[in-house]
Amino acid sequence: PVRIHLTPDVGAPHRVECFSGCGLGERLTALVLSFRSPEPLDPGCLLERDAERSADRLGCAAVDFPVAVVLPAGGSGERMGLATPKQFCTILNRPLISFTIQAFERLSWIGTVVVVVAKENHDLMLNIVQKFNHTKAKVVHGGTTRHRSIFSGLQAFSSTTDSLTPKPKVVIIHDAVRPFVEEDLLLKITLAAKEQGASGAIRPLESTVIATTSEGYLDHSLERAKYRASEMPQGFLYDIIFQAYQRCSEFDFEFGTECLHLALQYCGTNAKLIEGPPTLWKVTYKRDLAAAEAIIKETLSMSACIIAGAEAEAVELAKALQKNLNMMETDVIPCAKESHTEYLSKTRNFIHISTTASNFLGTLDMAKRFDHARLYPVVVVWVRFHTSH
Amino acid sequence: PVRIHLTPDVGAPHRVECFSGCGLGERLTALVLSFRSPEPLDPGCLLERDAERSADRLGCAAVDFPVAVVLPAGGSGERMGLATPKQFCTILNRPLISFTIQAFERLSWIGTVVVVVAKENHDLMLNIVQKFNHTKAKVVHGGTTRHRSIFSGLQAFSSTTDSLTPKPKVVIIHDAVRPFVEEDLLLKITLAAKEQGASGAIRPLESTVIATTSEGYLDHSLERAKYRASEMPQGFLYDIIFQAYQRCSEFDFEFGTECLHLALQYCGTNAKLIEGPPTLWKVTYKRDLAAAEAIIKETLSMSACIIAGAEAEAVELAKALQKNLNMMETDVIPCAKESHTEYLSKTRNFIHISTTASNFLGTLDMAKRFDHARLYPVVVVWVRFHTSH
Repeated sequence: PVRIHLTPDVGAPHRVECFSGCGLGERLTALVLSFRSPEPLDPGCLLERDAERSADRLGCAAVDFPVAVVLPAGGSGERMGLATPKQFCTILNRPLISFTIQAFERLSWIGTVVVVVAKENHDLMLNIVQKFNHTKAKVVHGGTTRHRSIFSGLQAFSSTTDSLTPKPKVVIIHDAVRPFVEEDLLLKITLAAKEQGASGAIRPLESTVIATTSEGYLDHSLERAKYRASEMPQGFLYDIIFQAYQRCSEFDFEFGTECLHLALQYCGTNAKLIEGPPTLWKVTYKRDLAAAEAIIKETLSMSACIIAGAEAEAVELAKALQKNLNMMETDVIPCAKESHTEYLSKTRNFIHISTTASNFLGTLDMAKRFDHARLYPVVVVWVRFHTSH
Repeated sequence: PVRIHLTPDVGAPHRVECFSGCGLGERLTALVLSFRSPEPLDPGCLLERDAERSADRLGCAAVDFPVAVVLPAGGSGERMGLATPKQFCTILNRPLISFTIQAFERLSWIGTVVVVVAKENHDLMLNIVQKFNHTKAKVVHGGTTRHRSIFSGLQAFSSTTDSLTPKPKVVIIHDAVRPFVEEDLLLKITLAAKEQGASGAIRPLESTVIATTSEGYLDHSLERAKYRASEMPQGFLYDIIFQAYQRCSEFDFEFGTECLHLALQYCGTNAKLIEGPPTLWKVTYKRDLAAAEAIIKETLSMSACIIAGAEAEAVELAKALQKNLNMMETDVIPCAKESHTEYLSKTRNFIHISTTASNFLGTLDMAKRFDHARLYPVVVVWVRFHTSH
């Protein structure tokens, strides 16, 4: 856990002394700097929020058939200009691929996530699975090309003797380097795949696509409105995509990139296309790691739990913070006790306001206890009043 | 200027107390933390580097005809999810468009840079031009679409009464939101445009491009190797692109996006296509600002000038830093005096090592004096030895 000590000078704005590791810091600094004169205390019900995210429950109701995921992660990261393959590069001390696995693992209606890696990265991947507690992940060896790796992943389900990976009705194929995939889109992709046999995420073209002559001159430009960029995730009836891979040629395995194309060519299945959000983009270059970190920081700092204690000054600061943090979901609770589990488990950001160090240790312990999945950094911000006692 | 005070505790590694605003900080922290036991002093020539970048001189020699730039910057930034149009969003306290203008302005063989903005942003743009001292920029009003804005920009040269903007032989059209364009590519684009009438930067396709049916299903996917993404910059003989815009239809003005297409359709000119680097990408989404900042920070922290003074301990630290900063271009000089202009003007990062505050002020003054263009933050890192005297 990272600790911030906010020490209010007498008359001066509260100052953040030390911070690292999470976007919450910058936001909080500005907020606390604006907290100078507390309003009169209005003791009342601080526990106001009770809305729960219900998307997962919707997913459970709509998907009454087994769904699994294949994540090809055999890339070498040459384009990145980095020694580490991009899927293993870390953002906030966590490898990119772990964020991607978690995007699927958090959804109760999704079963096994088959991660296909190059043989030399097998141990590295197993360590990541263990360290970040990816209980749904199954690591298998890939082939030398993307299509061979996907086929290896699909074959993990075809062995009837392995009861841990039963054959799914629908399989979602995604990229290890696209960590931001929302349940809403996954649900649409899954249901369309069940219905149509195949489905895929698309995006509008960001650049004009042009055909070139063999001498490197412009031949013609395509009419942008008629074309789309094919992105990930894609969904398939397992039997269709498995059959497509069994039928496809060595040339496809070697040079092909598009699963939707194989389903069309070898099974006659025209995929349903579904427009996804811009965050589906692929982390390709070094700069994309900075972009991904910015998104994660913003997401992580979307909610906070403020532990205010019972002192009037602390409760006032808590309420002022809650008011100013209007871009965030905030809950204010009096103490970090089991009775407030509901609020404590909703976020990884805790703002502990107190005058003594002893309560703070209790909050730290409690924050650690709720860090079940070890997936994100837990940030405990300690606002300590030196002046009041 | 941002100042860091590095205060070495007795026996402890040197510690960075305070930092903000530049990528150099993180790098330096790690380096200074690793500086514990200085090696024996080896007084010698500290002025080792004398290589100068010569690309600009090459450009001057090759381009013996007038070249100007049109930068359409009328976009509203809707896709960004931000209130500010993306070209006016700031990175390290400087608007994106200022970085882009500077990419052209630094090259002696490039003349006027016509910046085309929406009427409501005219004053904002003039302020940016003044604040960042863009002496080559000329601000004009744009139209309601990209093509109308480019035509407005081109018309700025057609008025023969305005001696400040003589008609160029070749005009480069670029995007305000592509700040990273290197001289090498600009030179190729310019020379090809002079030779062929039109030229444009291309990139390999990052996603498979697919044709969709009107019902939203996959029709077919394009063979990736035959197509390219058309990017910016593009270059044209002024007379060709101006004629193309004079001839093109209202439909082109309203819905077209591709200048190369107009040159082909209305002047029969097949543009020469030149592959550019991945940094040509367009800052489109909020996350791209974080990516751009990462690139700028990395670029800014590629060089530093270490002012070591005469004391043995300071010179030792300077040499240790230089050794450890092997990813950076570093010069070590004894003091910030006019006689070291050559070294002082090469960078915006100064590491001043001393035991007293008085020398430091001299370095600050000198650093400010070399900040001619006011384009980047000047970073003065002050490593101060409290313990030695």
